[in-house]
Amino acid sequence: MLLAAHEIATALDGSSPSSFSDRICFDADLLDHHGHSDWSTSNTSNRAVAIVYPHTTEDVSLIARICYAHAVPMVPYGAGSSVEGNFSQPHSGICIDFSRMDRVLALHADDMDVVVQPGVNWMDLNREISTTHGLFFPMDPSPTATFGGMVSTNCSGTNAMRYGTMKDWVLNLTVVLPDGQIIKTRRGRPRKSSAGYNLTSLFVGSEGTLGIVTEITLKLAPVPADTSVAVVSFPSIAAAARTASALMRCGMQGLAALEIMDEVQMGMLNRYGSEAVRKRVWDEKPTLFLKFSGTTEGIRQDIAHVEKVIDQSGEEAAVKFHFAATKQEENDLWAARKEALFTMVSTRPAGTVLWSTDVAVPLSRLAEIINISKKECSALGIFATVIGHVGDGNFHVAMMYDPNDAKMKAEVGKVVHNMMHRALEMEGTVSGEHAIGTGKKECLVDELGLETIGLMQTFKRAVDPKWIMNPGKVFDMPEDIQRQG
Amino acid sequence: MLLAAHEIATALDGSSPSSFSDRICFDADLLDHHGHSDWSTSNTSNRAVAIVYPHTTEDVSLIARICYAHAVPMVPYGAGSSVEGNFSQPHSGICIDFSRMDRVLALHADDMDVVVQPGVNWMDLNREISTTHGLFFPMDPSPTATFGGMVSTNCSGTNAMRYGTMKDWVLNLTVVLPDGQIIKTRRGRPRKSSAGYNLTSLFVGSEGTLGIVTEITLKLAPVPADTSVAVVSFPSIAAAARTASALMRCGMQGLAALEIMDEVQMGMLNRYGSEAVRKRVWDEKPTLFLKFSGTTEGIRQDIAHVEKVIDQSGEEAAVKFHFAATKQEENDLWAARKEALFTMVSTRPAGTVLWSTDVAVPLSRLAEIINISKKECSALGIFATVIGHVGDGNFHVAMMYDPNDAKMKAEVGKVVHNMMHRALEMEGTVSGEHAIGTGKKECLVDELGLETIGLMQTFKRAVDPKWIMNPGKVFDMPEDIQRQG
Repeated sequence: MLLAAHEIATALDGSSPSSFSDRICFDADLLDHHGHSDWSTSNTSNRAVAIVYPHTTEDVSLIARICYAHAVPMVPYGAGSSVEGNFSQPHSGICIDFSRMDRVLALHADDMDVVVQPGVNWMDLNREISTTHGLFFPMDPSPTATFGGMVSTNCSGTNAMRYGTMKDWVLNLTVVLPDGQIIKTRRGRPRKSSAGYNLTSLFVGSEGTLGIVTEITLKLAPVPADTSVAVVSFPSIAAAARTASALMRCGMQGLAALEIMDEVQMGMLNRYGSEAVRKRVWDEKPTLFLKFSGTTEGIRQDIAHVEKVIDQSGEEAAVKFHFAATKQEENDLWAARKEALFTMVSTRPAGTVLWSTDVAVPLSRLAEIINISKKECSALGIFATVIGHVGDGNFHVAMMYDPNDAKMKAEVGKVVHNMMHRALEMEGTVSGEHAIGTGKKECLVDELGLETIGLMQTFKRAVDPKWIMNPGKVFDMPEDIQRQG
Repeated sequence: MLLAAHEIATALDGSSPSSFSDRICFDADLLDHHGHSDWSTSNTSNRAVAIVYPHTTEDVSLIARICYAHAVPMVPYGAGSSVEGNFSQPHSGICIDFSRMDRVLALHADDMDVVVQPGVNWMDLNREISTTHGLFFPMDPSPTATFGGMVSTNCSGTNAMRYGTMKDWVLNLTVVLPDGQIIKTRRGRPRKSSAGYNLTSLFVGSEGTLGIVTEITLKLAPVPADTSVAVVSFPSIAAAARTASALMRCGMQGLAALEIMDEVQMGMLNRYGSEAVRKRVWDEKPTLFLKFSGTTEGIRQDIAHVEKVIDQSGEEAAVKFHFAATKQEENDLWAARKEALFTMVSTRPAGTVLWSTDVAVPLSRLAEIINISKKECSALGIFATVIGHVGDGNFHVAMMYDPNDAKMKAEVGKVVHNMMHRALEMEGTVSGEHAIGTGKKECLVDELGLETIGLMQTFKRAVDPKWIMNPGKVFDMPEDIQRQG
């Protein structure tokens, strides 16, 4: 592997490599940083032998050709914000860091699309284009995420109810295949196409196991003329979920997001929220966060409609039925939703870690699975919060525990395991938006069965016969390949 | 091949086959009907040796096992409404007719999803569920289309601007692989998932070349609280397209469809429209059809917003700026859009045929490509109309010509060829929603290049080594496989 690393360094630098080289790094601390995540419980002990920094698609192709010749694993690295060990290096190899491929290559405002390199951060892009062109990219993952990782995990977030997931917004990809060949999944930028296999959607969500994405063409959406936010608290998760369902079914077009937070998470906001968030005292009950978008007048009408639906629902809500009166208040209310996970991370006691996981189930089962999972956490006596994208039947549980307490760790693992299997019993999925990585490989077998996994592996083997593209993710390396290696 | 057909008949019937068998048909007229389309110019002279009628996924698996053993091609047949020869049988084989797999297997109204067999017609489904459950399936292809074909071609239609295309609405598929193995692309019904490769989106749009779809789980959308329709005529296609673009960019959420028809097509409505459509005299100018959806009051606001945007655009519109005043008028106006293609088909002179094709380009190039294509049709002196999904940069040209006039046929072919290549020069696609079939295989090579087609073929070969699944579609059979066969 080191041989391959040195060859890459020489090829990229045109000079002999050293740990101070601009294009390659052997530093143990940095290798550790690139092979481990504090946000994730899915860490492996192996590390890559080197980190390389491509600047162009051609650089990546060159790296791949060398790795292919030596049968050395390649592991792409974006922002490091994924939580299922997606960028870990269980089979070591070369870590390909995309931080220097961070340019917006072309913005076609009239066509409402943009071409970016994988290292571009989505919030940076949105800041740049929303005021100048009235456009934005409507996915909403971790604030630190970059587009390469967003493609790899098929991310989504709070806007998915209105805008779908990552796969719905990628027009084409430039991909370096394991042997270094450069392909486009589609050449043009039409907003729709039914020309040939949808290679784009196959690569989206494949976690870098089929090839390395080096350029991404994205659809953009017009910034809504106006937005607003409301919060409504309920006596129970079930009542909140029933109301969410009624709201989704009433055929408003302006309901852009529908989020839920449990009473524990609401309490966190009161205690640890930012100054803006602590301007108000939050009702410590299960709470729906609603985002509206459209024209100002249209939103006013939609809000009136929501009030009517909730009034007619017979649910005991409306105790703290609150609509933002000003833009500032709208921002403050939504900040509460966006800060939720950070309040958990930033306030956890020394020595504890966070196990954050997500599942998605058919809409009608959401309240039930949240309630059972909460009960299991309570029984363990651990601190745990729930945040959900209720419009998609998708929710996250974040559990705080001491990883050195082996018994507790095992029990937390059992809660997660039970949650996964409960989701499957309810015809759900073990990953709504975080992908599989190393953390959910066993669950994926339970979800899909060996035949479907076998078909995925057939496709992988066809394009990556040496199994060097991010090996050990999504599914294990087949035995016959391990024997060769 | 006949041997395989007889084996299938025996296996399905449990008795010896005859042309009167319930489950298999050798009738020449019916074989002709299933191998040819009046709607399409992409017909081939070969026919299947037999038509078989499965009732269940297991029937299809049994058919596939026998065909696989004999290396006999299988060609799925739905409603026969596709236009690129997608169900033709250039390599003969067995035609698998899904007309008896036409059941809704499960409707989960609370989860807003439904499980259907491939032979279900989308309009039948919508009639059934819209009034009883307030739900609908938002794609809008040919009225005769069935879900199997809609999956195969990744269809869309007038609603794509608001709701995306078929790939965005399929939750999972049951697929029979070429060797008869039955797999699910995903087991559950969560509205989103990032668990493993997106096999669903790979099969959607693959035109039955990777496997045979036998069950489809679809997301449903809530029926909008209200809808409305408006029509606005313009002095030119360019002015209409500019206005469409301005409307799309203004961030209304209630604009659900944005369609364009040229002056020729508008004239057809005046002369050959249904009684409802001929209630009004249509302005014979390029015309935008706008559909709104949302709450009644929200729509009223959106319409006011549209008027303002058009007023401020400086375009010479508004001569015939017309909003539906009643539900009846709304239906009549939209009927004009929906009848457009039928007015062409039903009124064409004896001896002429229709060449209907579509491309999609980035939004800013739509007016330009429509205008050039219209000029080329005029230069030929043929009758041609344009209908476009302007919100997606996608448009259809329908050309009427005498197929026995070899010179004219060649010249019409050249217009189509030029249109495809112009779309590619503009970074568009040769097929916005009709797929490739046999008709656009050469164009697809021009669009994607041999490397990308090669990758598609690599995936096909991995799952269909004998190349028996709908062979000759999307791309040609590779030479090494032809030699074996």
